[in-house]
Amino acid sequence: MAQKKDYLKEIIKHIDIKQHNVVPLVEAMESMAFSARDLNRAAKIYEKMLTDKDCTVILTLAGSLFSAGLKKVVHDLIANNMVDVIVSTGAIMVDQDFFEALGFKHYIGSPYVDDNELRELHIDRIYDTFIDEDELRICDDTTAKIFDSLEPRPYSSRELLWHFGKYLEDNGGPKVDDSVIYAAYKNNVPIFVPAFSDCSAGFGIVMHQHNNPENHVSFDSGKDFYELTQIKLKSKETGIFMIGGGVPKNFTQDIVVAADILREDAPMHKYAIQITVADVRDGALSSSTLKEASSWGKVETTYEQMVYSEATLAMPLIAGYAYHKGVWKNRERKELQKLFLKENVSVK
Amino acid sequence: MAQKKDYLKEIIKHIDIKQHNVVPLVEAMESMAFSARDLNRAAKIYEKMLTDKDCTVILTLAGSLFSAGLKKVVHDLIANNMVDVIVSTGAIMVDQDFFEALGFKHYIGSPYVDDNELRELHIDRIYDTFIDEDELRICDDTTAKIFDSLEPRPYSSRELLWHFGKYLEDNGGPKVDDSVIYAAYKNNVPIFVPAFSDCSAGFGIVMHQHNNPENHVSFDSGKDFYELTQIKLKSKETGIFMIGGGVPKNFTQDIVVAADILREDAPMHKYAIQITVADVRDGALSSSTLKEASSWGKVETTYEQMVYSEATLAMPLIAGYAYHKGVWKNRERKELQKLFLKENVSVK
Amino acid sequence: MAQKKDYLKEIIKHIDIKQHNVVPLVEAMESMAFSARDLNRAAKIYEKMLTDKDCTVILTLAGSLFSAGLKKVVHDLIANNMVDVIVSTGAIMVDQDFFEALGFKHYIGSPYVDDNELRELHIDRIYDTFIDEDELRICDDTTAKIFDSLEPRPYSSRELLWHFGKYLEDNGGPKVDDSVIYAAYKNNVPIFVPAFSDCSAGFGIVMHQHNNPENHVSFDSGKDFYELTQIKLKSKETGIFMIGGGVPKNFTQDIVVAADILREDAPMHKYAIQITVADVRDGALSSSTLKEASSWGKVETTYEQMVYSEATLAMPLIAGYAYHKGVWKNRERKELQKLFLKENVSVK
Amino acid sequence: MAQKKDYLKEIIKHIDIKQHNVVPLVEAMESMAFSARDLNRAAKIYEKMLTDKDCTVILTLAGSLFSAGLKKVVHDLIANNMVDVIVSTGAIMVDQDFFEALGFKHYIGSPYVDDNELRELHIDRIYDTFIDEDELRICDDTTAKIFDSLEPRPYSSRELLWHFGKYLEDNGGPKVDDSVIYAAYKNNVPIFVPAFSDCSAGFGIVMHQHNNPENHVSFDSGKDFYELTQIKLKSKETGIFMIGGGVPKNFTQDIVVAADILREDAPMHKYAIQITVADVRDGALSSSTLKEASSWGKVETTYEQMVYSEATLAMPLIAGYAYHKGVWKNRERKELQKLFLKENVSVK
Repeated sequence: MAQKKDYLKEIIKHIDIKQHNVVPLVEAMESMAFSARDLNRAAKIYEKMLTDKDCTVILTLAGSLFSAGLKKVVHDLIANNMVDVIVSTGAIMVDQDFFEALGFKHYIGSPYVDDNELRELHIDRIYDTFIDEDELRICDDTTAKIFDSLEPRPYSSRELLWHFGKYLEDNGGPKVDDSVIYAAYKNNVPIFVPAFSDCSAGFGIVMHQHNNPENHVSFDSGKDFYELTQIKLKSKETGIFMIGGGVPKNFTQDIVVAADILREDAPMHKYAIQITVADVRDGALSSSTLKEASSWGKVETTYEQMVYSEATLAMPLIAGYAYHKGVWKNRERKELQKLFLKENVSVK
Repeated sequence: MAQKKDYLKEIIKHIDIKQHNVVPLVEAMESMAFSARDLNRAAKIYEKMLTDKDCTVILTLAGSLFSAGLKKVVHDLIANNMVDVIVSTGAIMVDQDFFEALGFKHYIGSPYVDDNELRELHIDRIYDTFIDEDELRICDDTTAKIFDSLEPRPYSSRELLWHFGKYLEDNGGPKVDDSVIYAAYKNNVPIFVPAFSDCSAGFGIVMHQHNNPENHVSFDSGKDFYELTQIKLKSKETGIFMIGGGVPKNFTQDIVVAADILREDAPMHKYAIQITVADVRDGALSSSTLKEASSWGKVETTYEQMVYSEATLAMPLIAGYAYHKGVWKNRERKELQKLFLKENVSVK
Repeated sequence: MAQKKDYLKEIIKHIDIKQHNVVPLVEAMESMAFSARDLNRAAKIYEKMLTDKDCTVILTLAGSLFSAGLKKVVHDLIANNMVDVIVSTGAIMVDQDFFEALGFKHYIGSPYVDDNELRELHIDRIYDTFIDEDELRICDDTTAKIFDSLEPRPYSSRELLWHFGKYLEDNGGPKVDDSVIYAAYKNNVPIFVPAFSDCSAGFGIVMHQHNNPENHVSFDSGKDFYELTQIKLKSKETGIFMIGGGVPKNFTQDIVVAADILREDAPMHKYAIQITVADVRDGALSSSTLKEASSWGKVETTYEQMVYSEATLAMPLIAGYAYHKGVWKNRERKELQKLFLKENVSVK
Repeated sequence: MAQKKDYLKEIIKHIDIKQHNVVPLVEAMESMAFSARDLNRAAKIYEKMLTDKDCTVILTLAGSLFSAGLKKVVHDLIANNMVDVIVSTGAIMVDQDFFEALGFKHYIGSPYVDDNELRELHIDRIYDTFIDEDELRICDDTTAKIFDSLEPRPYSSRELLWHFGKYLEDNGGPKVDDSVIYAAYKNNVPIFVPAFSDCSAGFGIVMHQHNNPENHVSFDSGKDFYELTQIKLKSKETGIFMIGGGVPKNFTQDIVVAADILREDAPMHKYAIQITVADVRDGALSSSTLKEASSWGKVETTYEQMVYSEATLAMPLIAGYAYHKGVWKNRERKELQKLFLKENVSVK
């Protein structure tokens, strides 16, 4: 029988947009059709968001993006001041980013394997990628350890992910140089995970609450929504760069309505781009068009563009275009984490 | 210019599976190919779940299902003891089910409209369906009112949705006879919404926390995960019937791992079916195959089937098949809400 | 090692729309949303085509439909005068329909097999369906035999498929009672296969031309186009029921333009419905919307509807709805084959 | 009301792969996942085809590729000896390539327009691209003129497209420097269009046969199949690079079987890559996997790779990678047109 090491051999490596000047390629797409032209327009709208001094840029992430080699792209967006807020699924931030920050890796795999054999070997599969399940359990345990160390009370995911960054800082730093959680911690970029129990941190919180039945940390997802709405209220304009759909997309679009409830006449998101393969005809939110969002008063239709592509192809082109155009160089850091930072300091 | 009433004319009506004996049709699909044969096999696996006395049946819901006319299907599954637990998006349960229980409606619309005009008229669009935004704001406000009435502490979404059912009970009952939240309340079927702030209840909690900054209700999504895991631990076997993917799918698959963490050797989900149009090649969770889930130790591969179809076509056929086969008639009600019921009683 | 008979055990059976009165089910879909409502509208447009005395109904077929159990649906549409012309891929008509008329079968298979083993066993796979390759070779040979028997000259595919029907007639009739080619032959329904060399008949013509290098039968696809255009010119109105896209869809839409070239002011197709899963965003013809076709002057937009569904689910519902509504009962047979019949009689 | 010139303003420009060295970008995709890694593998297989001295490279084209800006990519593959045979839809070769060779253009458009207005203005739409229908009619007429000039007999599409090239040569050359038909004519690369009546040439042949009822040119698609099979028989190995599916894909895969019928033991296609967005679950040929093709004995499974992407994104990367790796520099021109050339000379 095969052994674990037979499967876990080749490491997923994250693409480095800084190494590839895709500006001429993306510019050539401007006069083509279909996805190429859409991608060109999305890239230019992203550049416009970064040029607009009044615009807070929110990046939403869904899909198994970091296990697929897109982690460094997001790291570089933070490091180069090209994103002000991140709203993500839990899997991307904890099972994939924090996991790699602890020194673990994702491995090149294949969808044509015997999943029962993988299960017996404690290997988890994401389409064509493998993960060592025993390492994932260590990640689960680490999140429980962090929750055990905190003052028992409800927390937003933003607060907790700040503590994840601090945990890395306090324990010798991340084991990799492209940790998104750590870069966000250092650069005061808030990260929200509205469905925070739906990931490795969920296993951690179950252990923590199981061992501390009376008095414990809890995930206050209403606070997530309230905090992200406060960011909207503090921002003159907002632009959203969405990879995939899901809760991060819906949640981020909804803050316009929440802002409107708290204070009349909050503006819609001025800019909105989305990379997705979801088909509009099933009526689900992940595929709902940005034009539809404008009926809800969430997104303006002047600068919106959907790009029909799997993210590993389109995201490096769009992010790389904006990076190499260099408009981030004169952009002021917003450091929106500072809006909340005092209350974060709550270790018991 | 058009008026609101020009758009909001024809009401979405929910399909009644009890009126359509689709058993011969679905049986004829057994000897065909592609989606028809897959649908037949999924329907038979669902029937098997209901026949297996040891099996707790968990229904997961994602996509704009109830606005599309599938609400009564779920209502009838509860009323006829064909489902023991529901895990859902917030939009389905609050914006769509609770909304209709308050007396509001969804309307037949069109994707070929001017979304800017809709916005000015306070009409929200979901692909080919219209909603009165002013009515949705009343729904938001009602959730805030419920939160205001509760003792301030962290709650699971299950607890809060039980209170939503109780609110309907205490206020003259639902305005419709097919409310899912109310049927679940009466039949002790727990409903979980792991991303509870990502819906109308999110607007409610923002208002509530804004008005009660120090001491307030919060959504404890870790508790959701812990409670659903307890249901898994209390069940000899489990089967999942998934409509769409998203957080409800992932969350429900993950409880096998959580159960395994709390107690060695928790069994995988024995039965699993999913209706989805998501394409497997983007690597996202919504489209991940049930075979892939088995590498994670979440789903057994003997009785699993994915059906590639938009839900409005496939769900009435699968649910209708199982209903008209009548196997639910001798099934004992599990009333899993009773596991938690004492602690629900916490009105201030 | 496995044997051929281990794989070829369970036969694909064709669904019989006459046995399933889906009218109430399809009517219930009228007040739902998404694909269900689209399907309802498509079914009603098909009914409208059949009610309109002036309308010639053209059915276009693409995808592996008959191997999937949809052959009898088309047979019953012909037998009950619900279709006047068929435009199809070659695989459906020759590899699947003529093949079964010769007494061969399609078998229930699985996509989860070792294709190299299948190849060694002479088993061909279509997704989840198996075919005996040795039987397919007999089908190829039979088409060559038919071509050998004909006077050498260019033929339209319609002429040749009429000869296929005649071959069945002259050789004891088809071995099954639901042969589409034979029913079309008996009911004077012309069948066109514009890419006729792209199927089992292609292998037959290669053998025929190889053995008769100087003087041989040839496929005159220009004649196909000319003949179908003549049908358009002879028809007051036309309606098209499209299953899938491909050449049959494009070819049939194009005859409006061809008719316009031969005679000014030929009307567009008045009715058009299509069942497809193709995504509009790749710009290909299979997915191009019927609204887009109207820019080309091919399709009127008043009565057009696309249904996003795999065909095995949607086609029995749409065809079954129209069948059980019974509007075909008073419909006059058009017998359009008679426009061309004299010249068909050309056996050497 | 708008005028034609208001819509036909900005010209589609074809991307020039020679200007973009994508080798480092495509190499970085090797260690990622999902479509990026698939694209990398496909690019390397294409490079392998070009390095293999025994391999005849066949390019298949489906979808509105040249109207979308991919024409020059194919031109450059011919000019730089990176493709030996082309199998295409008629729309790509005639409505798009020959059309532009006559001096006409495609224009940047939008799917969000009034198609009825476009129709009145004689503007045809392909998703987000516009064409002047009056210019397209000139293209139709030109094909009729070419058919009128030829000796009346059945022709393969390869012969006719050679005459299209000759027509350009005899009439002052193409009006653009990136005509695929002309480059193929000059470099002796045969082009096959198996469904040749399903395009602008179909309108031409209808006019031609209408005006010459007794004695005329016809499209002999069986001869297409026979000729392509002869190329297979003359080639030691074959590799196929497929853009989209449709008839070109199926036709080209089928020649292995045809070769096997004419001569025992013809080898399968040794290399096969496909760019497509078609979903495998509808069982159609366009989406059928290359593994499935191997059950039919058509494609070897060692070097096959499907890439899930819309073609405007993926084709420039794959073709550009192979171009900039430079392996074509030492490749001998096969000039397979010469196999047939004598018989082409048949002008009346």
